Amino acid sequence: MRRERLEDLRGLIDTRLDALAPMADQTHPLLSQAVRYALLAPGKRLRPTLALLAAEQFGGKAAAALDPGCAIEMVHAASLILDDLPCMDDATLRRGQPAVHRRFGEDVAVLAAVALLNEAYGVIARADALPAKARLRLVRTLSEAVGFDGLVAGQLKDLRERRGVAGAAGLHELNRQKTGVLFIAAVEAGAVAGGATGATLAAAQAFAEHLGSAFQILDDLVDATATRAQAGKDVGQDAGKPTLVSLLGLDAARAEMSDRLSLALQSLDPGHRDGPLATFTDALFAPYRQAA
Amino acid sequence: MRRERLEDLRGLIDTRLDALAPMADQTHPLLSQAVRYALLAPGKRLRPTLALLAAEQFGGKAAAALDPGCAIEMVHAASLILDDLPCMDDATLRRGQPAVHRRFGEDVAVLAAVALLNEAYGVIARADALPAKARLRLVRTLSEAVGFDGLVAGQLKDLRERRGVAGAAGLHELNRQKTGVLFIAAVEAGAVAGGATGATLAAAQAFAEHLGSAFQILDDLVDATATRAQAGKDVGQDAGKPTLVSLLGLDAARAEMSDRLSLALQSLDPGHRDGPLATFTDALFAPYRQAA
Repeated sequence: MRRERLEDLRGLIDTRLDALAPMADQTHPLLSQAVRYALLAPGKRLRPTLALLAAEQFGGKAAAALDPGCAIEMVHAASLILDDLPCMDDATLRRGQPAVHRRFGEDVAVLAAVALLNEAYGVIARADALPAKARLRLVRTLSEAVGFDGLVAGQLKDLRERRGVAGAAGLHELNRQKTGVLFIAAVEAGAVAGGATGATLAAAQAFAEHLGSAFQILDDLVDATATRAQAGKDVGQDAGKPTLVSLLGLDAARAEMSDRLSLALQSLDPGHRDGPLATFTDALFAPYRQAA
Repeated sequence: MRRERLEDLRGLIDTRLDALAPMADQTHPLLSQAVRYALLAPGKRLRPTLALLAAEQFGGKAAAALDPGCAIEMVHAASLILDDLPCMDDATLRRGQPAVHRRFGEDVAVLAAVALLNEAYGVIARADALPAKARLRLVRTLSEAVGFDGLVAGQLKDLRERRGVAGAAGLHELNRQKTGVLFIAAVEAGAVAGGATGATLAAAQAFAEHLGSAFQILDDLVDATATRAQAGKDVGQDAGKPTLVSLLGLDAARAEMSDRLSLALQSLDPGHRDGPLATFTDALFAPYRQAA
């Protein structure tokens, strides 16, 4: 994956997110400001990038997955706003800027998160580059990713029971709910847009699940080792909470991350192991694999 | 509308809401408890009732609108949880019981509200009594009802600017965002399920918008005149905030409510003015019209 190609995709995503976020004359001005602040802040745009690359990998055009990918980024942005609230992680810094509730107040932060989640469904419903059945399938996939066995449940478990989560299996399950589900939804959105079905689609989902595991370990490594400025968000938030890093130690966690990456790539059909998803994954993790 | 008929519909709705709400083994147990507490608490179930009656009025079966109607009730329940939060109205009582955050904590309350909104979309996507295109249309309708020009924007305006909203026109617009949008979505869901299109559908939407206006005035009258025990929620919450009641006085507000009801009924096609929607509306407001 050439660096320029990724930057092109990134530009495409940022331009579309900007167009999808409401301007001040389309809603309450404070809501527009808070939504734009949260959604357009510098971020890796991993989830929409995965959606675009998956569409290409399975024979479609990246553009068909653009709106679904942006919808998933909206959900991700919403989840970050909520995680940072005083009644949750009580974080101060996110994506290199004050958390949304610190800048706009708690009421605006909660409403901006709700509006972003809600708008994600509108964006998918209007994504007419996809047939009605594919859009409906994505609504269902996203609802399952967010809901009672997804992000929301994972966040509650993290808040109320993290210290009681014992062993690697429990932590992997928590990571699936907190991170894996949106990776899977993003890759699925792209794969469906690209025309994948059956075993090919299942392989794409398995790839995304392992990639999500690897990425969560990476996130825990950053929390344990980076400075606040390097990470652009509060670090050391997990101190005292079990993570795979605290459970296994830095070296074994890095090895586990590499194992998950290998599993991710092995999940793809042999014909897809040199495709856009694999190349992107290699590029994303390269700096951290060398450190290990 | 015979009283028994309404009680039958109410039973159908409550049974379905109970089945749609997650049990403790399907999610985090606290999330299950909070969602069930909020969603299954005694309520009027106005929105799903309107959906079922609209389906019948336009020639369909009530059952086709059951899941979309329940989805809208989920959104309504979510909005009540959020409105009651300490960073918003800071209410203590709702539907005759402690507000969700008082009972389960703020973190659980926020997550339960998000989960309910999110699940509404899953319920609509899975509502296979409706064709894919109708379901997709409802996803779009609901997203517009909740989002940047709907409930969320209305709640923010109410919190941050209510005291600055001047005149009846501004208050009617606020009431449309806070109440009208879900009435319209409910009637539209039922009308679409019943096969309404074109001018008939537009008439149903106009009916719902006027009905929503009338209902919001009723709600303001209750806030101004009922005791906390009668209302089953905190009252006097609007003291100091302009409402149509404070602006016009009790008598003129009751007259305005009656005018809105007349407009609602006149919006329906002549052939539908004795149908289920009109009969239900008459029954719902009868006690309050006599008081006026």
